[in-house]
Parts: sequence; structure tokens; C-alpha cells
Amino acid sequence: MADKSLNRDTSTLDPTPWGHRWGYRDTKLFVHPDQSVEMTGERYNLCGYRMPYLIPFINNELNVTIDFSSARPETARPKLTPVNRNEAFLAALAGVLRTDQFTTDDPERLLHSHGQTTTEEVSRVLFDNLDRTVDLVVWPEGDEDCQALVTLAGEHGVCLIPYGGGTNVSSALLIPAGEDRMVVSVDTKRMNAILSIDRANLTATVQAGVQGSRLEELLAKEGLTCGHEPDSVELSTLGGWIATNASGMKKNRYGNIEDLVENITLVTPSGVIEQRYSSPRQSPGIQLQKALFGSEGNLGLITKAVIHVHPLPEVKKYGSVIFSDWQTGVAFMEALNRTGVKPASIRLVDNLQFRLGQSLKAAPTGSKVLMGKVEQIFVTKIKGFDHHTMVAATIVYEGSAEEVALQEKVVAATAKQFGGVQGGSGNGERGYMLTYAIAYIRDFLADYYIIGETYETTVPWDRIHDVCDAVERVANSEHQRLGFPGRPFTSPRVTQMYHSGVCIYFTHGLYHRGTENGEEKFAEMERTIRAAIMDAGGSISHHHGVGKLRKPFVDRVASPETVEAVKALKQAVDPKNVFGVGNNVFAR
Amino acid sequence: MADKSLNRDTSTLDPTPWGHRWGYRDTKLFVHPDQSVEMTGERYNLCGYRMPYLIPFINNELNVTIDFSSARPETARPKLTPVNRNEAFLAALAGVLRTDQFTTDDPERLLHSHGQTTTEEVSRVLFDNLDRTVDLVVWPEGDEDCQALVTLAGEHGVCLIPYGGGTNVSSALLIPAGEDRMVVSVDTKRMNAILSIDRANLTATVQAGVQGSRLEELLAKEGLTCGHEPDSVELSTLGGWIATNASGMKKNRYGNIEDLVENITLVTPSGVIEQRYSSPRQSPGIQLQKALFGSEGNLGLITKAVIHVHPLPEVKKYGSVIFSDWQTGVAFMEALNRTGVKPASIRLVDNLQFRLGQSLKAAPTGSKVLMGKVEQIFVTKIKGFDHHTMVAATIVYEGSAEEVALQEKVVAATAKQFGGVQGGSGNGERGYMLTYAIAYIRDFLADYYIIGETYETTVPWDRIHDVCDAVERVANSEHQRLGFPGRPFTSPRVTQMYHSGVCIYFTHGLYHRGTENGEEKFAEMERTIRAAIMDAGGSISHHHGVGKLRKPFVDRVASPETVEAVKALKQAVDPKNVFGVGNNVFAR
Repeated sequence: MADKSLNRDTSTLDPTPWGHRWGYRDTKLFVHPDQSVEMTGERYNLCGYRMPYLIPFINNELNVTIDFSSARPETARPKLTPVNRNEAFLAALAGVLRTDQFTTDDPERLLHSHGQTTTEEVSRVLFDNLDRTVDLVVWPEGDEDCQALVTLAGEHGVCLIPYGGGTNVSSALLIPAGEDRMVVSVDTKRMNAILSIDRANLTATVQAGVQGSRLEELLAKEGLTCGHEPDSVELSTLGGWIATNASGMKKNRYGNIEDLVENITLVTPSGVIEQRYSSPRQSPGIQLQKALFGSEGNLGLITKAVIHVHPLPEVKKYGSVIFSDWQTGVAFMEALNRTGVKPASIRLVDNLQFRLGQSLKAAPTGSKVLMGKVEQIFVTKIKGFDHHTMVAATIVYEGSAEEVALQEKVVAATAKQFGGVQGGSGNGERGYMLTYAIAYIRDFLADYYIIGETYETTVPWDRIHDVCDAVERVANSEHQRLGFPGRPFTSPRVTQMYHSGVCIYFTHGLYHRGTENGEEKFAEMERTIRAAIMDAGGSISHHHGVGKLRKPFVDRVASPETVEAVKALKQAVDPKNVFGVGNNVFAR
Repeated sequence: MADKSLNRDTSTLDPTPWGHRWGYRDTKLFVHPDQSVEMTGERYNLCGYRMPYLIPFINNELNVTIDFSSARPETARPKLTPVNRNEAFLAALAGVLRTDQFTTDDPERLLHSHGQTTTEEVSRVLFDNLDRTVDLVVWPEGDEDCQALVTLAGEHGVCLIPYGGGTNVSSALLIPAGEDRMVVSVDTKRMNAILSIDRANLTATVQAGVQGSRLEELLAKEGLTCGHEPDSVELSTLGGWIATNASGMKKNRYGNIEDLVENITLVTPSGVIEQRYSSPRQSPGIQLQKALFGSEGNLGLITKAVIHVHPLPEVKKYGSVIFSDWQTGVAFMEALNRTGVKPASIRLVDNLQFRLGQSLKAAPTGSKVLMGKVEQIFVTKIKGFDHHTMVAATIVYEGSAEEVALQEKVVAATAKQFGGVQGGSGNGERGYMLTYAIAYIRDFLADYYIIGETYETTVPWDRIHDVCDAVERVANSEHQRLGFPGRPFTSPRVTQMYHSGVCIYFTHGLYHRGTENGEEKFAEMERTIRAAIMDAGGSISHHHGVGKLRKPFVDRVASPETVEAVKALKQAVDPKNVFGVGNNVFAR
């Protein structure tokens, strides 16, 4: 099986995806008559048992009583924009690709017209309609196909939008308003091979359309791992990781995407941007390669990359530590970071997320489930900790036995300084499990008028509380102002540690039944929250990227001259704006 | 004192530099009548004692008998090109800077017209003449001065060349042939302050002209270190490190320059390129900042940067391990790298450099020095190792006591697998000492017609021997072909380890007395060697950069389209080519 953090062996499972919703079709949450919730299939450790506490937890935290008997109706017949046919292009394309490599079929067009941003994309496609759909979907099968496609697009005035795993959450896949050319989604999923492995130097040349799960499966057969595990790793692709400047949960060991890629091949209308050799590190003058991370489809089509691979680690294990409250947990994280000894991954979830994790448990065997009396059920055994303030750090250790032993020792010693209590490996694993389950929970709740969204930012160590406080404050005040029922669920977790700060990942939920244009209002709120995050010292994005979602904030990132220089770069490689996806500084 | 790896406390010493030669004026090697060599002053551990073995070692290894009684005569009256006065610019400049901030004095002009490349720069200025000298030297004292200067240069058609520590070794400071504008050297040395320290997040905003030694002195007063230690750390500057994409010997702990800089301010004719906030890591779209590393003065003037700082480490110690031969030493390095446990710095010197280090020792007390019988003197005590094949790994450990203890344990265990014998901390320190001394030795030997040069490359693990063999082979065959006397001294050391390869740093020496145009012939040879390095799998440069020295190889690095995109970037930020230094892809 692939070396995925928390999945069971999934190699025998049907990999058919939901399409518009997140994830695989074998996985779905549903409500039993007794209001317990179950996850279908056997893909995740959360599958196949009744969760009696989830609905009570949600009702309680959102301070509403949700009717789980009637689901929100999906759009019966989605409206697609008519195919904007560029006949000359289509004729030329038929000359270079097989007919099974492109289609104007509506379901494929709709599928390729959005990513996974909750309100701007998923809610629109499920319950409303998208403003614009792509006109054609193309599946190139290698560099030659890509070059031919890009050349033809340039010749015939067509707009190309690269499409990887479809998991983008910054509205980067939406078609810019006003785009009147034929719009072609370039789906890289057939470009999913490892072209070569250099065992001596532990690198691999990999096609950009490979999904993380497949990459790890292929590498595992060779006793290797890439180790890059963004939360979307099952579905997202190497090309998408580069285009969004992705971060992996185990970056302490394997690096973020910019640390583990040694060469990128980008096909642009002006030609191929690439290094002629990959190098462990060099000083060859201005390295344009470094500017491709985060380019978000604006410059060209990433077709392959040279990446680091590693022997599978000798030891892999989970751990967790419980702290009395968020402030103490954050202080522990900072102290641990300063030791210089860091597990492959360590995350700190706040009390709400900790309790959300608990709410996914099965009923204790032999004990009577007291529905609605969540408090009693979850009284923990940890002496002196308040169940409504305690937080958990969840840990993945990887490495040699000696490395892991030192990491465990340092974690334990540091935790002790902050009164931490070892929570065991089961709780650690449960924490990571939630990573994979959360999007399915989002889609489940969407059917009952709950918006669930995540957003992230980078924060210097000393602004963590400012940023978290700002998000909570603004989420509450905007919730009131915009007239949503009940109260919001906002919950931070620290997912990455760096020398000078952290990534904070917020989960935000609210019930919007009865609120007119609830999704639009949520989007407005999210913008207000982003402004508050940045005012408090957070970045525009840690790893999701800017896309179109955060375009109002691009002028807060870099000097105007910097933006002009980036535009000059675009002009050089794509003078006709073939790659007209219009993200970040190119957003309209 | 500054936390410099191997220096004594130098804070009370006179920091006056030699100028054209390397380093500080208090330090110089000279020959005693008994042919022993001594280093003046008290700056280095090598100072103040007689080295009886150095000259015999040199004669022996170069297979010549050098006359150390008569030094090569320096150029008596250096020829400078007449000052190309742009009167309008000079008048305007006098309106914005004080008169002590610029000069047309010949000594300053000459000093600012070269770096430290041996044959193309230092030999030329000492023993011959430079082709072209700058017309004016300017010392801006802050961002405002820089912006005014750049604006005036653009308005009046003047060429600006940023100047940091003057230690560049890729001829990047040479003025391009055919430059007919007034050429102004912009010396950043007065911009040497730490503007602010962010203790909570361990970053500092530092002016780009600060030299490494001063930076570490200033930080040490605050209990902090930057930890970036290129071999030139005493003299080179933060701005120069960024412009050349520098690498520090302790990068395993502190990172290379691109890992430790969070924001760069670059003043260009089109405005200021910078981020509006520094961030531990983010995904803000295309990051132009990343393209500034290695820009080599082509795009603008780096005025300040935000860098990482660290508390001084709890433990700092040296170590060394001796191996029977180079192949075994390299195998050890690779195995150690794969453990994932790496000391702050570990270097592997070959047998020649090992013996060069030994030749800098004092005579054993109480024993008779047998001049010329070097072999006998250096018979080592290590059983079973051949003195003419053994190699040494020299190590700097830094970190917490626990980290260092694990590193020492892993080093020892790995070394044991390869038959390594612990060489003690003294030998480790001696190895690093040589780093600081080698350029003084070069300048000493230059007076006796010996060319000493260093060049480096990045090499995948499995090409190390190919590259080293190629350098030795080509150095030998070219030495013969070009008619140099004796034999060449070529000696590799592995100075950095990466996931997929290493940096190899070559030291190359030869005697050229009696060979016409010996320096030009050496430059030709170096180009031939670089071609051989790249043919064998090495990069164009690991950290010295391309400058003008390696311009024949730029088309072997990146696709032509990449180069065109870089040129478009230049066009956007500097359309009039004010920064006309012409390095890497802009070299003529």
C-alpha cells in the first residue's frame, strides 16, 4: 500500500471520485434513524461504525437544532454555458490528438470548471450553477501532446487552464469573468508516470499529473517515498503542488514542495522553461525555476519535475500530548521548535477541534449512549484538565530508530515543562485521521445547510494569539451582522512550524438555513476575516495560494514594482495570455 | 568576539584590509632565512610560529624548486583608465550626497575595479594592469541615498556596479568590455547596521553592506548568531551573499542564504522590489524574491534584508575522522548523509589537502627538523593507513547538548563502518583553520609565480569520482599541453552535503615562472576544466556564481526560453541597463 499517513490499505478499493464533491465515491457520511452518523466503505479508519456524538456536537457548538431528515436539494439540471467552439482550433487539435483525448461532454465540462472552494465553487455547482463552464476538456498524455496543444492554443486564440487533482481551494480554477475565448481545461491526469528513478542520488523524474496517492503507491513498490503529504495528498497532483507552492504535513523531514523539487518543465507559448540538468543546489545566476512555485497556472503547463525520493523510514509512529489550554500548547510548540529537534509532523489542535475529534468516536462498548449529554460522555480521565480548554498536539515520527528516539525524548521533556500529558499514539493517529475525513464531513454537512470552510495563514510566533483572536472576534461579529443563525464554529490548528513562525489552519463552520444568500455572505465574511488576519500579522496564504479568492489582498504582499516585474515575466513567456486563468496578480 | 568558527578574538585587531590582496593587513606570510614560513599578526591560530614544512611540501608537490629569495615585482605605477566624467551626473550627485560619499581618487577606483579571482583580477592588478577601472566610487549610507543614486544614474546614463566585500571570485566585478558610460562602483560598506532585531521571532532586519564578521560581532553582543559562514565570512557582505546565492559551511544547521533570508529590498531604476512583510513561508503567487538570489548585480542594488538569527548554540565543538582513502571517505559521507543526522558542518578533504594542512604545523618541540624529508616527518601514528592516501573529515558540531551527542554518536558509528579512526578535535579545528588561511597562502605564493585558485561545483552522489577524475585528468593534460613546469596541485574537498549530491571545492595550484602568459593560459585551462566538470555531471557553480568567468557555460544551464524570460525581467526593472555589470546571462 501507499505510505499514506492514516489510510488503510486502499489499493484494492475503487478509486472513482465523487466529482463535484470531495474524495472517493465509496466514502460518504449518512444519518441513521437514531441520529448516529456513519461513514460508508472501508477506506478510512473512521468508516463502518456509528458515531452517536457528531450530530449532538454540531447542534451544540453551532447553537442550532438542525433537521437531518431532509437534505438540501441539489441542482437538478445544472446549467452549462454553451460550448464556445473555435472550429479552427478543434480541427487542428483533431490532427494531433486522438478523439478520446478531448471532449465537449457536459459532465466533464462541469467537473473541470471548478475546484473545492466551498462557497464559490462546490456550493455553486451542487446547489446553484457556475457562471461559466469550460468549453472543452483535453487529456494530454505527455510533453509532446502538451507542446502541440499550447502551440495550437496560441495560434488559434484559445485559453488554456491547467487542471490537476481539482482540489484547489482558492477559486483558482474558476474561469475569469469576461473571458470570451474558447476555454480549454487541460487535465493532466493521464500524465501520471514515474519516468525514471535515480536510485544513486534518490531523485525521480515524474510526470506532473500524478496524484499523491498514486505517486506514493508507485514509489512504495520500489521501497521509496516522496514524503510530500498535503492534506489533499490522495487527490492533488505534483503539478498542482508546484503551481500552488504546496506544503506537506511532514515537511520537517521531507521539506515543502520548493525544497524537494530540483527541476520543473513548464510548457509555455514561448517555449519550454526548464533547467537542462537538475542539481542538488547551485548558483547559476537568476533562477527562474524558483519563481514557478505558486505560479497558479498563469505562466504555462507544468508537465514534469525532478523530485527527491527517500527510502521508506525505518520507524514510523504516532504520538500525542495533551495540554491544559491553547496558550500552553502554543508555548510548548515554540519551545519544541527552538530545540531544533522536530518530528516529521507535529500539529496543535485547539479545544474545539480536539472535541470534534472526540465526537467521531464510537459509543463505548457496553455503556448507554446518552444522546445530547455530550459533556458527560467526554469527561476525560486527565486529572486537572478542563475538557473545554484542553488541547492536543498530534505527532508523526519518522526516521531511524535513533532519530525517533531522540525526538520522542525531546518532545516528552519539552511537554513536561508545559505540564503536558502523553495522550498516546491512538489519539495521535486519530488527529491525522481527521485530516482526511474533514472534507467528507464538510460535504455531508453541506446537505444540511452548513457551510464548512478552511483557510490558512503564516504567522510569526508572537502574533499567533493576535491572529487567532482576530479570527474569532471577526467571525463572531460578522456572523451577527450578516444575520446567520446560532453561532459560528471557528477553530485553529498549528500545522507547521518554522524558524520564525507557524502555519495556522482555521476550520470555520456555520448554519445558514433561512439566511438569504448565505454562501455569498460567507464569502464576504471570509474576505473580512482575511483582512483581519493580515492586519494582525498573518500572510495572504501559507499554502493554499491566492487564486481569485484572495485577489483583493495581492497589493498587500509585494511592492507595485514587484508586481510589474512579474507581469513582464508573464508577457515574455505568454504574450497572448493563452494561460488566461487569471490568478493572483493576474486576477481581475 | 564574533562567533567565527576558528578565529581568535579579533575584536581588538586593526581591521584594515589589504585592498587588492585578500584579507587583513596584519596578516601576511613571509619566509625566514631558514626557509620556514611564518604568518604575521595574531589573527589566526596559524599566526606567530615557524612552519618549516610548507616550502618543502610545495616544492615537492609541484615538482619544482622555487626560488623564495626574490619576489615577483608588483606593478610600480598601475595604469587606470582616465575618469569618464558625466558632469551632469556628478553635479546632480553633489546635490544629494556629501562630498565624503564619493571620490574619483585613483586608489579607490582601482580597489573597486576587481574582485578576488586569481588570474583575471588579482594577478592583473598586482602584476599587470586591469583593462578598465571604474570612474567613481560612491558610499551610500542608506536606502534614501541608494534610491537617489539609482534615479540619477538612470537620468544621466550612468552605469552602476554594486560592490560589497570585494571578495567575488567569478570576475563579476570586472567592467564589461565596451561599456562607454561613466561607471560607478556603489560600495555598500557604510550600510552595515542591524536596523532591528525581532527577538520573539528570531529575525533581524540588516543593511546589505554588513560584513559577515561585523554581523556576527553585533549579533553576538545580543547572544545571537546568524550562522551563515561562507569561507569569505570575514569580508563578504549580506548583499553579496544574496547576489551570488552564497552557501555557508554550517548550512546543515543554519541553511544556505536562500533558506535564511525572508525578505530582500532591491532598489532598481523602476522602483523598489520587495515584499511588504516578511513571512516564515507563504504562497503569495509568483515570488520574485526567489529570483533575486544569484542575480549578481544585474537587476539592482540590494539595500537590506530580513534574516534569521539564532541564540548562540549551547554546545560548539570540533571533530575529525581519518579514513584510509578518498573512496572510503566519500562512501562515509554518503552513508552519514543518509542517516539524516548531520553536524552543522562536515567536510572531507582529500589526501593532498590533508597533507597541506599537516605542512602548516610547527616543528615538533625538541626534535630536529629534517628539511626536505617531509615524508619522514609526517609519518602518522595511525596504524595501517598510508600517509599518501589517507583523508580526513573535519566536523563542526553545534546545537543542544543532546543534539550534538546524537550527532557524535551517529558520526562515530557510521565512521566505524568505514574503518574510520577518530582524529580528535584539534585536527578538526585545523581543517577549518585552513579555510581562512588559504587565500593568504595564495597571495604569498603569487609573489613566487605560483597561481592558486579555487573552483567549485555541485555533483550528484554517483558522479563524485567522475568529476574528481575529470578535473585531475584535464588539469594534468592541460598542464602539459600549455607548457607549465613541474606538475599541478589539484585537490578536492567535499564541503556540503545535500539530499542528492554534494558541493566539491577544488584547490588548484601551479608554478608558471618561465611560462609566457601563464595567467591567461591558466584561465584557458580553467574553462577547459569547467567543461569537463559539466560533462561529468557537475553544475556550473555551487555558490561562487557565474559572473563573467563562467559565461561560456550559461547556455548549458537553462533552456533558451528561460534565458529570454530572465532578460524580460531585467528589461522590466532596469530598461536602460543602469545595472550594466553584465553577469551570467547578461555577460557579453
